[in-house]
Amino acid sequence: MSKSTSKDQSGKVYLVGAGPGDLGLVTLRAKECIERADVIVYDHLANPEMLSWAREEAEIIYAGKKAGEHALSQAEINKLLVEKAHAGKEIVRLKGGDPFVFGRGAEEAKAIVDAGLAFEIVPGITSAIAGPAYAGIPVTHRAENSHVTFFTGHEAPSKTKSAIDYAALSKLGGTQVMLMGVEKIEAVAREMMANGVRGDLPVALVRWATTGRQETLTGTLENIAKRVAETGFEAPAVAVFGDVVTLRKDLNWYERRPLSGKRIVVTRTRKQAGALTAQLRALGADVFELPTIRIEPPTDLREFAKLVQDAHQYDWIVFTSPNGVDAFFEIFYKLYDDAREIGGAKIAAIGPATAQRVRNFRLHVDLQPEEFVAEAVVRQFQKQGGVENLRIL
Amino acid sequence: MSKSTSKDQSGKVYLVGAGPGDLGLVTLRAKECIERADVIVYDHLANPEMLSWAREEAEIIYAGKKAGEHALSQAEINKLLVEKAHAGKEIVRLKGGDPFVFGRGAEEAKAIVDAGLAFEIVPGITSAIAGPAYAGIPVTHRAENSHVTFFTGHEAPSKTKSAIDYAALSKLGGTQVMLMGVEKIEAVAREMMANGVRGDLPVALVRWATTGRQETLTGTLENIAKRVAETGFEAPAVAVFGDVVTLRKDLNWYERRPLSGKRIVVTRTRKQAGALTAQLRALGADVFELPTIRIEPPTDLREFAKLVQDAHQYDWIVFTSPNGVDAFFEIFYKLYDDAREIGGAKIAAIGPATAQRVRNFRLHVDLQPEEFVAEAVVRQFQKQGGVENLRIL
Repeated sequence: MSKSTSKDQSGKVYLVGAGPGDLGLVTLRAKECIERADVIVYDHLANPEMLSWAREEAEIIYAGKKAGEHALSQAEINKLLVEKAHAGKEIVRLKGGDPFVFGRGAEEAKAIVDAGLAFEIVPGITSAIAGPAYAGIPVTHRAENSHVTFFTGHEAPSKTKSAIDYAALSKLGGTQVMLMGVEKIEAVAREMMANGVRGDLPVALVRWATTGRQETLTGTLENIAKRVAETGFEAPAVAVFGDVVTLRKDLNWYERRPLSGKRIVVTRTRKQAGALTAQLRALGADVFELPTIRIEPPTDLREFAKLVQDAHQYDWIVFTSPNGVDAFFEIFYKLYDDAREIGGAKIAAIGPATAQRVRNFRLHVDLQPEEFVAEAVVRQFQKQGGVENLRIL
Repeated sequence: MSKSTSKDQSGKVYLVGAGPGDLGLVTLRAKECIERADVIVYDHLANPEMLSWAREEAEIIYAGKKAGEHALSQAEINKLLVEKAHAGKEIVRLKGGDPFVFGRGAEEAKAIVDAGLAFEIVPGITSAIAGPAYAGIPVTHRAENSHVTFFTGHEAPSKTKSAIDYAALSKLGGTQVMLMGVEKIEAVAREMMANGVRGDLPVALVRWATTGRQETLTGTLENIAKRVAETGFEAPAVAVFGDVVTLRKDLNWYERRPLSGKRIVVTRTRKQAGALTAQLRALGADVFELPTIRIEPPTDLREFAKLVQDAHQYDWIVFTSPNGVDAFFEIFYKLYDDAREIGGAKIAAIGPATAQRVRNFRLHVDLQPEEFVAEAVVRQFQKQGGVENLRIL
């Protein structure tokens, strides 16, 4: 990654896979590239927390790619990468999953090469494999199958010119994983059955795979579309078709963790908050940190206000210090004139001084662990009648 | 990963994907798990350098899995994991690639669950995707295909009971990636052609993918088996069948790096050696570090002696200090009584004192960069008539 070895003053583009969502599934190389980059161009599906690894001076550009909401077109992205590289920059093009698995990385690489510039690929973990794995579904299993096919649901079978031969796909069997296109599940399932796949073939849909918001819906080829409609199951999701889905009943490790599905805000005023966050996440919680010490206008403040504004969406707000309480409510009462706007979120306060400060704001402290460690918080959560009573978003 | 949250004193097993070989493609979570583990059970294909991240006290167990050379049977591995977990240990089961892509991770997870123990999956980058990517081949491409199938070559098509329906596979088209079984390429190619796949379909084999030893062989379905035989191309390799292989002519970024295919030993006596190594690797070299300061018997010494003994296999030996020279030759002359045993390896010495010490041993210094930085080394390599003249293993 050394600039001085390039033959001219041109920069280089790193096409980097951001993985499926879980920050832990980012590669060492991807992190290193982000830490060094002059420019980062990132997609909707790349976990934005990765951007906190970037240098202060790095230019950060959002390229969109949320279905039906493109901030930049593919041609514009290609042009941007080439321009920045010509200007001598090291560019990280951060893409959800793997850049070469339905990521259009090949098109971007081609544009860079055609412009006479250098690039590197940093593969990422694809949600086609990690999504099922986090739902307890191995895409291959020695006893069940010897092959797995990944296809994109963006090619609707109803299209006369679909690039996928559903007859051959159905005959092939094994495990089939569909990326994107959960909204087309009905047409895909119908097409598979029309091509002879049995209606009771197990199917699983995993949405927000590998994140704290992961949810899995299971069914059969026959009833999965109905279940999607009934539950309002939405993108982004991967679909797995195959007998391996039955292994989930034994291997579902991720969604069974004690705080799975719980959304928790932790105010960050001390170093230890990071450790608490990591431990809560390891127990399955979807944790957001509110940095109440280093609030510097304007970007930090905006982000902070946004989190405070959304506070009622969380199951718990964990205050880690009296300062955290003050900082939170200072913003909160600028946004709302009614304490009830905090909604159903419960409040945890670590230590008696923090708890007292919450009470000064005339709010009930639902949980008051003495120690600043995840074990204590979790033990208290469990004493409170178990985490099962918490609202799941 | 906190032990105190387990309900009893049992440990936990982390089924961890070690990725395809390149240390940079290891995930943050995998590294963290290795750093914490009490016990590490690793496979042949997991890069052993990862083991240097383990704690001093960690118990490290080799489980084999090189084709035809099993140190432990699958049943023995399962038993071992369960025993260690029952003993309250945190165990990392380190598997090449991804544990759930032809990695038998599901079987191990099932054995753990059946014993009433906890496990987690840490997905890894599979060589089925990263191998082609490092050869400049995207497994999907918008213009070329909408699907990719991974299958294992260990299921020979000649077997009457092969689990793979080659007729359906051939009809499906798209990209096909075969993991393992490069020795069965003739039978597989024949079977595909018998099922109507065109003989001029592009095929690529990538061996030792993503490592400093990576090599790629391309051909067509018709001639690939002949080319494998002619070149003696051996496992471990992945095979890619499909039109995407043609993209390699433009996108082959990894094998075109300036030091690609070169094997270099760097004596490590100063902190900066790590930086030099990283930079040489980024330029494509297959670098081994010889730790000449911290040589402590018996394990280190044995490893050191092994590297010294194999020194003639390298393209370059880079000495980074006079101490490094002394330490190297002290061992070298215990192993050999003839300086010529150093073979074709060229010698680089950083700084005049280091170079003088090499000359004291009556050996020629082929390269003497003044500065201890990769740029200087590489600039000198290039002045020397270019790296193209170096022997490639």
